[in-house]
Amino acid sequence: MSKKWVYLFTEIEEAEKQVGGVWDAVRGLLGGKGANLFEMTRIGLPVPPGFTVTTEACNAYYASGRQFPEGMWEQEVAAMKAIEKVAGKGFGAGDNPLLVSCRSGSKESMPGMMDTVLNIGLNDVTVETLGKLTDNERFAWDAYRRLVEGFGKVVLDIPDTDFEHALHGMKEKLGVKLDTELKTQDLKELTSQYKAIVRRHTGAEFPQDPYDQLRLATEAVFRSWMGKRAVDYRKHEGIPETLGTAVNIVTMVFGNMGNTSGTGVAFTRNPSTGENAVYGEYLINAQGEDVVAGIRTPEKVSVMEKDLPEAYAEFKRITDILEKHYKNMQDVEFTIERGRLWMLQTRNGKRTAAAAIKIAVDMANEGLITKKEAINRVTPDNVNSLLHPQFDMNAKKQAAKEGKLLAKGVNASPGAAVGRAYFDADLAEEKSKEGPVVMVRPFTKPDDVHGMIAAKGILTSEGGATSHAAVVARQFGRPCIVGAGSLKIDLERRIMTADGVTVKEGDWISVDGGTGEAFVGQIPTVAPKFEEQTDLITLLSWADEIAATEGMRKPGKNDSPTRGLQVWANADYPADARRARQFGAQGIGLCRTEHMFFETERLPIVQRMILADTSEERTAALNELLPYQRADFDGLFEAMTGLPVIIRLIDPPLHEFMPDEEALLEEVIEMRVKGETAGLAEKESLLAAIRGMHESNPMMGLRGIRLSIVMPEIVEMQVRAIFEAASDVKLRGFEPHVEVMIPLTGTVRELEVIQPKLERIAKQVVSEKGTSVDYKFGTMIEIPRACVTSYEIANLAEFYSFGTNDLTQMTFGYSRDDAERNFLLKYVEDGILPKNPFQVIDREGVGALMDICVEQGRKTRPGLEVGICGEHGGDPDSIEWCHLIGNNYVSCSPFRVPVARLAAAQAAVKHAK
Amino acid sequence: MSKKWVYLFTEIEEAEKQVGGVWDAVRGLLGGKGANLFEMTRIGLPVPPGFTVTTEACNAYYASGRQFPEGMWEQEVAAMKAIEKVAGKGFGAGDNPLLVSCRSGSKESMPGMMDTVLNIGLNDVTVETLGKLTDNERFAWDAYRRLVEGFGKVVLDIPDTDFEHALHGMKEKLGVKLDTELKTQDLKELTSQYKAIVRRHTGAEFPQDPYDQLRLATEAVFRSWMGKRAVDYRKHEGIPETLGTAVNIVTMVFGNMGNTSGTGVAFTRNPSTGENAVYGEYLINAQGEDVVAGIRTPEKVSVMEKDLPEAYAEFKRITDILEKHYKNMQDVEFTIERGRLWMLQTRNGKRTAAAAIKIAVDMANEGLITKKEAINRVTPDNVNSLLHPQFDMNAKKQAAKEGKLLAKGVNASPGAAVGRAYFDADLAEEKSKEGPVVMVRPFTKPDDVHGMIAAKGILTSEGGATSHAAVVARQFGRPCIVGAGSLKIDLERRIMTADGVTVKEGDWISVDGGTGEAFVGQIPTVAPKFEEQTDLITLLSWADEIAATEGMRKPGKNDSPTRGLQVWANADYPADARRARQFGAQGIGLCRTEHMFFETERLPIVQRMILADTSEERTAALNELLPYQRADFDGLFEAMTGLPVIIRLIDPPLHEFMPDEEALLEEVIEMRVKGETAGLAEKESLLAAIRGMHESNPMMGLRGIRLSIVMPEIVEMQVRAIFEAASDVKLRGFEPHVEVMIPLTGTVRELEVIQPKLERIAKQVVSEKGTSVDYKFGTMIEIPRACVTSYEIANLAEFYSFGTNDLTQMTFGYSRDDAERNFLLKYVEDGILPKNPFQVIDREGVGALMDICVEQGRKTRPGLEVGICGEHGGDPDSIEWCHLIGNNYVSCSPFRVPVARLAAAQAAVKHAK
Repeated sequence: MSKKWVYLFTEIEEAEKQVGGVWDAVRGLLGGKGANLFEMTRIGLPVPPGFTVTTEACNAYYASGRQFPEGMWEQEVAAMKAIEKVAGKGFGAGDNPLLVSCRSGSKESMPGMMDTVLNIGLNDVTVETLGKLTDNERFAWDAYRRLVEGFGKVVLDIPDTDFEHALHGMKEKLGVKLDTELKTQDLKELTSQYKAIVRRHTGAEFPQDPYDQLRLATEAVFRSWMGKRAVDYRKHEGIPETLGTAVNIVTMVFGNMGNTSGTGVAFTRNPSTGENAVYGEYLINAQGEDVVAGIRTPEKVSVMEKDLPEAYAEFKRITDILEKHYKNMQDVEFTIERGRLWMLQTRNGKRTAAAAIKIAVDMANEGLITKKEAINRVTPDNVNSLLHPQFDMNAKKQAAKEGKLLAKGVNASPGAAVGRAYFDADLAEEKSKEGPVVMVRPFTKPDDVHGMIAAKGILTSEGGATSHAAVVARQFGRPCIVGAGSLKIDLERRIMTADGVTVKEGDWISVDGGTGEAFVGQIPTVAPKFEEQTDLITLLSWADEIAATEGMRKPGKNDSPTRGLQVWANADYPADARRARQFGAQGIGLCRTEHMFFETERLPIVQRMILADTSEERTAALNELLPYQRADFDGLFEAMTGLPVIIRLIDPPLHEFMPDEEALLEEVIEMRVKGETAGLAEKESLLAAIRGMHESNPMMGLRGIRLSIVMPEIVEMQVRAIFEAASDVKLRGFEPHVEVMIPLTGTVRELEVIQPKLERIAKQVVSEKGTSVDYKFGTMIEIPRACVTSYEIANLAEFYSFGTNDLTQMTFGYSRDDAERNFLLKYVEDGILPKNPFQVIDREGVGALMDICVEQGRKTRPGLEVGICGEHGGDPDSIEWCHLIGNNYVSCSPFRVPVARLAAAQAAVKHAK
Repeated sequence: MSKKWVYLFTEIEEAEKQVGGVWDAVRGLLGGKGANLFEMTRIGLPVPPGFTVTTEACNAYYASGRQFPEGMWEQEVAAMKAIEKVAGKGFGAGDNPLLVSCRSGSKESMPGMMDTVLNIGLNDVTVETLGKLTDNERFAWDAYRRLVEGFGKVVLDIPDTDFEHALHGMKEKLGVKLDTELKTQDLKELTSQYKAIVRRHTGAEFPQDPYDQLRLATEAVFRSWMGKRAVDYRKHEGIPETLGTAVNIVTMVFGNMGNTSGTGVAFTRNPSTGENAVYGEYLINAQGEDVVAGIRTPEKVSVMEKDLPEAYAEFKRITDILEKHYKNMQDVEFTIERGRLWMLQTRNGKRTAAAAIKIAVDMANEGLITKKEAINRVTPDNVNSLLHPQFDMNAKKQAAKEGKLLAKGVNASPGAAVGRAYFDADLAEEKSKEGPVVMVRPFTKPDDVHGMIAAKGILTSEGGATSHAAVVARQFGRPCIVGAGSLKIDLERRIMTADGVTVKEGDWISVDGGTGEAFVGQIPTVAPKFEEQTDLITLLSWADEIAATEGMRKPGKNDSPTRGLQVWANADYPADARRARQFGAQGIGLCRTEHMFFETERLPIVQRMILADTSEERTAALNELLPYQRADFDGLFEAMTGLPVIIRLIDPPLHEFMPDEEALLEEVIEMRVKGETAGLAEKESLLAAIRGMHESNPMMGLRGIRLSIVMPEIVEMQVRAIFEAASDVKLRGFEPHVEVMIPLTGTVRELEVIQPKLERIAKQVVSEKGTSVDYKFGTMIEIPRACVTSYEIANLAEFYSFGTNDLTQMTFGYSRDDAERNFLLKYVEDGILPKNPFQVIDREGVGALMDICVEQGRKTRPGLEVGICGEHGGDPDSIEWCHLIGNNYVSCSPFRVPVARLAAAQAAVKHAK
């Protein structure tokens, strides 16, 4: 006996038996659409009789060089006979002709990618019978001409245009505009012309035998699996080719058989808002394609209650059953044929972010799903999109139509921003007092930060998703596009141009950080408020609960007692910290002290400190800085009372604090050429000093702990400021938990040199203040060598925080300032790298080193606290990795905290045993 | 019974029993000097009776807060009594007074670091007896006054100056200049003054009881172990404090008892040349210190044969016994007291590099030692110093005295160079035609290479031991100093200054690359020739044999069948390859193809290729380069016929081939300011192109395989050139073994993109030529990620070569262009890093990644060939690591090949089981 390739809708048990009864496997065998038809049949819902040719048959078809596998066609014919019997109709015969549709249906939805043939079973004889039976000759001929056209295009590969020409010619001859104006006679004539087209192209008649039609349509669906559109779509979406497609053969039912008939599509809840009320459209006395074609305006589905109260009651009963059965909001298609309701499709409905969250929370509250399930019903992107202002979609489309799209770049930080374009940080800051500003630069540097903060959005022509501009933008929740390569910014003429569009400095532009599109002019936006998003707040509170309980680590090689993965935030200022706390952060994982050095009144002191010739001069400048730093920390500790705050000691190379070398060089040359001597010597010596600090590869240079060893005065001041502030805050009744983080450690001996010195200062300051402060000293892990010598480093470090930006840089040897522009984006596009490793942790390489690091570190120090404070801390896939290797927390920018909370919970659920 | 702290020289068996009989442990217990005195006593050589207080006693002394351990002093007294009996003399008593010396002696030689007291046993009574006994009152009183002085200084901590003043005053009063002019009466008076000094300082008399003298002197030796000089020395040499010092008490014998007495020091072979003939000096009727003081000119030891034929015969017999016993050249001290020869010391003699090699080879040929032992008698430094021209030591000292030392820097490449200083590559090349040149630059770049090759030596004021200048210098065997920070090079005024010394361009300078010293003027040099160094050639042939047999790997985790570690060479040109082969290289491990791009006639074509707007223009330029590259490879394959040649495809970023950005910028700014327009636009567009290539961190940028993926045309041309050349060479009857190396691989998918493409070209070219060529494709391992994903990479790569320069850069996150100058040398100095990881492989970090890489790679591909072609390939410690992780070969610059051959053999011997 040959294998079973064909299943009647009533044979779901047999199908389950074949694949072991798992729903996912059933979907694999029968396709998504098919499996749902089987399932509805099983639970007694009215599905028109039909059967499905399995995906296995499709795969066998390809495996044998495009031949139906043995027995398949015979099974299909037998299934057809079974349906004839059930339906009491005849396929191509008798006074009640059976018509069927033939549709593809893969496991994964591939909307519009594959082919469908309707009305199979019509021929020159049955068309007449159907006309009589329905008392509607025109309907019968219209169906027949559609079959010939559809069959011609899909099965016989005849170009669309041939049929369109014929239709067009007919309408022109008759002087009519709409297809509906064609009379029965016209449609008969058109059918005849269509059949002639078929004859011309194939040299044969349109097949009159319905079984020929069925066989050829089945094969056409198989063939469409390897069609160019489908192949491209699968490649883009990452759907494996091995899935194959099923073929669904379903008895045709007709909603256009009078006023007791109708057809519609509906969602069981509102897919836009999530409101628990059926949402959809229907048309009385119409076919499915009429709803789509827009010839008649459909009614709200609720109108059906008046028109067809019995059918509506049945419809309500069925949608209730479906929601309870699938435990998810359903998107259904249905037809009422002479008062009888038929379900043609059901599937989980697509929904907006807001709806996704509301539905998940409501369903959990209704007891339909568990909180864990609710967590998995929402994507991190859903959460993210609720937190950033969005452009009005229609206004954006309109702007694009009007040619106002200026440029496209990397979508570095989501959200919508509208403002006047300014080309430098000072001007942006100044003009922001008059109205909203978008800062536009070729790229940004640390001393541009004040302008970026003042701006509503940022646009750069260079850099990648982790460039300075991108990182800072995400930190401060500013919409940002980077690397808009087609944009030419002329800083001298104060204009920018792209694709022939020119924008003057001060002109309005709109920046969509979610899509990477920049527009000329103002596009209206919609802005959300976190505290008003009660459903989101509820969902995230469940997420925290689940991460803490389900995420509790089982004993394993990287094990450490923990409450599961927490979410902390990167925040440099008290205001950021307060926002992070509002977003649910359970600590500060990274406070970058150097950002404080860039503020206007401090920078000259910092520069004086750097240029000091003696340790005394340096100390004097540092003493001036100390009160500033202390004040910064004071606010932070107060805002985060009761929660841990990790403060990273100075990290960047000192030349970042100095004036731009090239601008200074230009100035000096100009003065020399012009013979200006006043102030020249001073500028020359400053230039020489800056050149002395020049490094060929500053990312691998004198910074972090290296700088602290060569020039310990700075970190000594910082540690003093930290503990003076912590003591003061403690004395005011708050609970500071201080963690001092030393960056860029590569060998334990570096820590041995610097850490004890700093611990002594901490002890001394706290005792001077006459109080006690809870604190730890630890290190950032961002050097590959630190990962493989973690067994030593953990002897000193009391906590680790992965700096995955730098760790990725060093592990790959990719400069993050250059790589994206030069080759990295191409690598991702060409599939050399599956993802941009600066956005998603590279588990094979960087991740493997992290794993080694945690394992070694916890062997040396079993309770070692491990976190991550790189850009990856807000990325769901990376958060899952952090869960897997036993991190205690991830830290990300405040605006990513809600996303990370969800991702942490999802990871916990996914990997709970 | 208390522990045994004191051993008579005759009690070596007891000492051996205590420590388990191992010679090294015996030396640990008794100190080096002591152990050899015991050993000589055992084999029946004439050693004056004596005993040793053990190092354990010293450690116990410190452990108990500077108290002699229980029983020690009693044992010392008992030993003294035993000696009295053997010597037939009385300690502080009788008519034949026993005098002893008290000397320190640790396991490791610490010359001059600790204290000695001679003539213990003299007092106001025995001095008279001794005078009578020797019939030399003056000798007795001189000995006594020396005891008081030595004891005062060493034991009682009285400042030297007090005694010197007294002596000086005495001589002034008498109007004499030399100590020897003092008469017996003067010495009596001086002794009395010395005793008064002791009284004044200590409030007590100089101890008359010899046992008091002995006890205090013993303790003084113990104390000197923790003296500042000794502590500093140990810290510097890495000698552990826990060793402790022994105290050797030896009966004094006197060489100044008339013409049948004498004293001398000798080497059993010539320590300068290695010649097998006793080499030393002696003085008749003299004491040891007279030889040192230089009052009388010593005779050659051979003169003794005439003076004292019997003693000489005895001496010859004894030195023969000593060499046979110790199987090494000995450095001995002896005294003849009234015709009787006494051996006072023996130890392995220090020797020059040439002598070390000759002695090792000779002794092996004499059957005294095995070839394996011979290999271990020579250090890699010995071999190295024989290969580079050396300055005449005395001439250098003289120049330093005359204030001609210009500057000190990092000793980047050993050897001596003398030439006129020129400040740029073009000038250096041009002037080299007129005479020897030293190229002087702040730092060098790839387009300086022609000048560096033309120069005899290189001197830079910036950069570290692995800067471009240093690497290239070692590659070409040019003496080189880098990072001479005190040197100010004024390129405009064409002068350089340091410490007030000014050198004009064109002046003569001398550069000692072995010490890092640069001198003004010409210092004479001595130059060796490899082919004339027959002993070295013999030794290295043994080394190869031993590395191949002893180095055969035992089954283990990184195992691969191999002949043991081979030595290959890095060579870009046929001449280098021939030299490498002469030096014994068994393959070329790295041919850098890009160096070929820098040659004068090629660079403009290369630049045209880089700036090409279309693929066609680029291909056209590459077609012009192809014949050049083919010719380069042709010569290389011919020179290395029968041996493997690894050719690395283009590695550096393209901007290295372009004119200097900053110089061009200055030019453009100047032209703009001056309003010069002719040629400005062209320069501006070139500047823009170069800026477009600018990278913030070029070391982590668009180079290696990344460049090949973005711009495959270059490597396609290179592979074509390689296989055209290999085919041509094969057709001429040679045997090329081609290995094509792809640099900078970070993920296997990079190789998947590029390698099959290149393999197709290889196959096609070889088949076009109608021949067959043996070849492999492989990759450089220089990215940490490649190490941890080696299990994948080995699926494609047929061989690995560690690029440890880059791997060290990435693993540490140290930019090798900047790190040494900014912090790395300080790190090494402060002990944060044990060694400069760019010179010696960091086993903990970089080495661990290499180990992981080999292990994973050989699991995937069991026969995987693994080598190293970074700078570390010539470093002995790193070579040992390569042996341990199962490398097949190390590759280094041709001039390091002999060193590496020795190091490979030493590693094999050390780790053979």
